[in-house]
Amino acid sequence: MSSIAPLQDLVFRGEGGGTIVFVVMDGLGGLPDPKTGLTELESASTPNLDGLACRSSLGSLLPVGSGITPGSGPGHLALFGYDPVANIVGRGVLSALGVGFDLEPGDVAARINLATVDSDRIVLDRRAGRISDDEGRRVVEKVSGAVKNIDGIDITLIHEKEHRAVLIMRGDGLGVDVAETDPQLVGLKMIEPDASNEHSVRTANVVKILLEQVDNILADESVANAFLVRGFGAHPNYSSFPERYGLNALAVAKYPMYRGVARLVGMEIATPPLSNEQTIETLENNFGSHDFYFLHFKDTDTSGHDEDFEGKMAAIEEIDSMIPRILNLNPDVLVVTGDHSTPTLLGEHSWHHVPTMIHSKWARPSSDAFGETSCRGGDLGVLHGIDLMPLVLAHSLRLNKYGA
Amino acid sequence: MSSIAPLQDLVFRGEGGGTIVFVVMDGLGGLPDPKTGLTELESASTPNLDGLACRSSLGSLLPVGSGITPGSGPGHLALFGYDPVANIVGRGVLSALGVGFDLEPGDVAARINLATVDSDRIVLDRRAGRISDDEGRRVVEKVSGAVKNIDGIDITLIHEKEHRAVLIMRGDGLGVDVAETDPQLVGLKMIEPDASNEHSVRTANVVKILLEQVDNILADESVANAFLVRGFGAHPNYSSFPERYGLNALAVAKYPMYRGVARLVGMEIATPPLSNEQTIETLENNFGSHDFYFLHFKDTDTSGHDEDFEGKMAAIEEIDSMIPRILNLNPDVLVVTGDHSTPTLLGEHSWHHVPTMIHSKWARPSSDAFGETSCRGGDLGVLHGIDLMPLVLAHSLRLNKYGA
Repeated sequence: MSSIAPLQDLVFRGEGGGTIVFVVMDGLGGLPDPKTGLTELESASTPNLDGLACRSSLGSLLPVGSGITPGSGPGHLALFGYDPVANIVGRGVLSALGVGFDLEPGDVAARINLATVDSDRIVLDRRAGRISDDEGRRVVEKVSGAVKNIDGIDITLIHEKEHRAVLIMRGDGLGVDVAETDPQLVGLKMIEPDASNEHSVRTANVVKILLEQVDNILADESVANAFLVRGFGAHPNYSSFPERYGLNALAVAKYPMYRGVARLVGMEIATPPLSNEQTIETLENNFGSHDFYFLHFKDTDTSGHDEDFEGKMAAIEEIDSMIPRILNLNPDVLVVTGDHSTPTLLGEHSWHHVPTMIHSKWARPSSDAFGETSCRGGDLGVLHGIDLMPLVLAHSLRLNKYGA
Repeated sequence: MSSIAPLQDLVFRGEGGGTIVFVVMDGLGGLPDPKTGLTELESASTPNLDGLACRSSLGSLLPVGSGITPGSGPGHLALFGYDPVANIVGRGVLSALGVGFDLEPGDVAARINLATVDSDRIVLDRRAGRISDDEGRRVVEKVSGAVKNIDGIDITLIHEKEHRAVLIMRGDGLGVDVAETDPQLVGLKMIEPDASNEHSVRTANVVKILLEQVDNILADESVANAFLVRGFGAHPNYSSFPERYGLNALAVAKYPMYRGVARLVGMEIATPPLSNEQTIETLENNFGSHDFYFLHFKDTDTSGHDEDFEGKMAAIEEIDSMIPRILNLNPDVLVVTGDHSTPTLLGEHSWHHVPTMIHSKWARPSSDAFGETSCRGGDLGVLHGIDLMPLVLAHSLRLNKYGA
C-alpha cells in the first residue's frame, strides 16, 4: 500500500489552496440485484450525481485492504488518510470521542454492552433485550453515580444509545491488552478481563473490581444487570488535520461515532445536525469559514444492514437531490465516496470496492454515470483508501512538486 | 503492495465458512495472435468459463511484482498468499518437496543437473544430452549408493526427471549462501561452490567433497559424468494453511513440483492423479472432506513453452469442459487463475498479468467472457498475487470485520 506519508514534509504546502467538500455516504457500495444486474446506486435515479460524474475523476476505492471488511472507524480513518492497519484504534476510543468525551493521551477507553446474566454470570441476552435509550441511560447512571474511582483510576461511564455505553479510565500505568468479557454467544459465561501483558495488569484489575461493583449495584435489575466490556483502546496521538494537511476542517455528522473519528484527526465539530437537511444547512451556513468540510450521511448504511434495496436507493436519491446545493457553494473540490460497502444482498459491511469520485477543474472524466460499473473503469482505477486524501489535496492544488 | 498479514489475528475466524475450489491453469495468461488480436484464452471456445465469468468478479493478477516473471514456486506461493519476495525459497527446496522428500527445518536442498564435462571440468553439455529418465536414474543411484554422509552431514540424492535430480543435506550448521556451480554456458569451466558467508562454509565444503567423489564415481560415464549444483535453499518454516487461514486443504496435482509447493504450505496431498480426468475425479471423490481444494493443470504451460497456440487453446478447452463437474459439487467459492503467463508467442514464462476470476454469491460480475481483455476491466482491477487469498477468504465469509 502506498501513502504520501514519506513525502509529507516535502510536498505539503501547509496553507493556501481550494475549498474541499468531502461527502461520505456510509456503506455506499453495493452488490447487483440478481434480477437486473444493477446495484443500489446504479438502480437509483441520480441525475445530479451522474451529472457530477461527467466532470469528475472516478475510481473504485479499496478502503483498508484486499478482502478486508472495515468497521466504520478504520473505514473513515483510511478516507482521512490515516493508515488504519499501522495505527489500530480500539473501538472504545472511537465511542468515547463519539459521545463527546475529550480523550487525553494515556486514557484507556472501552465499549460496554448492557446485558442480562444469571447469578453465575452466564449470559442470557448480550443486549439486555435491546433496552430503550431511557432505560439504558437510567442503568448506566445508576452505576456511574456510585463508582467514581477505583484503585486511583478515575472512572467515567457515559451512556451512548440503547444498550451501548462507554467506559473511560484515566490515570497512570494503563495498558489496553485486556481480554474482552463478552463471550459472543448466549449460554456462555462472561470472560474474566485478564491482562495479556504486564503493562495491562492495572487496567485488568480496575475492570475486575468495576464488574464486581456492577454485580451489586445492578443486582435488583431484571434485564440490564451486567456490563460486557470490549474494544479496549488508548488515545492514538495522531497528528491532526491542521498539522498534517494544513487544513482547517469542519465535521458535520448526525451520529456521535463519526463526530468521534473526526475529532480524533483534529477536525472542528459542528453542532450536530438532526437530519440530512440540517447537515446541508450547516454546510451552507458555515461555508467560507473552513478549508475542508466532512459531511456524513448514514441512511445508505442503515438500509444496507436492513437488507432494504429500495430503502438504500431512496437514501441515495435523497443525497442526490442535495448535490446542487453543494455545487451552488462552488467548492474547488467535491468528493463523493463511502467508508465501505454495505450491500443489501449481504445485509452487512463488506470488503467490496466503493464507488468514488473527485470533482474539480482538474478531473479526468470517463463516464456520465456514478456507479460501481462506471467507477471500475474510472481514471483513478482501484485506489487504496489512504491514497484518496493525497489526491484530494492535489486536486485542490495544495501540494508542492516533489523535486524540482 | 498490501497484505492481510498485520490483521491476521484480528480478522481470521479460524473456522467455519464456505468450501473453496481453487483451479490453477499453469501459465494461463497469453499474448494476442497478431492476426486476430486475440490471446490463446480468448481464441479458445470456452462456454463454461464464459458462463462462470457472468457470475464472477474478474481481475488481472500480477503474480509477484511489476515486470517480474515468476517461476512456478514463487507464482504458486503468491497465489496461496505467501509473499514470495519477503520469503525467497530456493528451487532446491521446491524440488525436494516435489519428489516427496519430507524436508525438515534445518535441511538444505539444491537442484542438480546431470552434465557432460571434460577432464578439466569444462562443461560440454549442461543437460547431458537430455538423458532419458532411466539413464538419469541409473547415474544418480550410482552416486547415491556410494555417498551417504560427508563430514557428518547426511546426503540424500533423488532422481527427479531426465537430467534433473535433487540433493538434500541434513545436519547442523548448514547455510545456503553457496555459489551455483553451473557456468550457464557451454565451454566454460564449472564454478567452485564457494561460500559467500561464514554461515555457509560447512555447506560449501560438503558440496566440494561431493563433487570430487562424483568425479571419481562417474569417471567411466561417457555422457552424464558431472553434477551442476544450483538453487540452494533451506526449509522456510511457513505457517501452514490450517494455522494461517483455518483451512483444511487438499492438493490435487499431477506433477511433483506443485505437490511440493502445496506441501510447503501445509496442504494435504491427494494420491497423484495421472490425468486431468483423474484430477477432477479426485475432487469429486473427496469433496466434502476439506475446506479448500487446489487443482493444478499443467498443459496450458507446456503448450506455451512449445509455442503451440492451438495446443494451448485445446488445453484451455479441456479444462473448460470440466467446469460443469466442479459446479455440480456446488462449492461456495470457485477461483480460476494461473501462477503466471506463458504466452506461446514468447515460448517462456512471462511477467504479464494473469486472467483471474472469483465465483461466489458475493461477486460483482462485469463481463460475459473470461479473457485477458475482460479481466482487465473487471471489478478486482489489477490485483497482486498475495492479495488473492484474502479476497477468496472474504468471498467464503471466513473473515471477521476489522473494527466495529
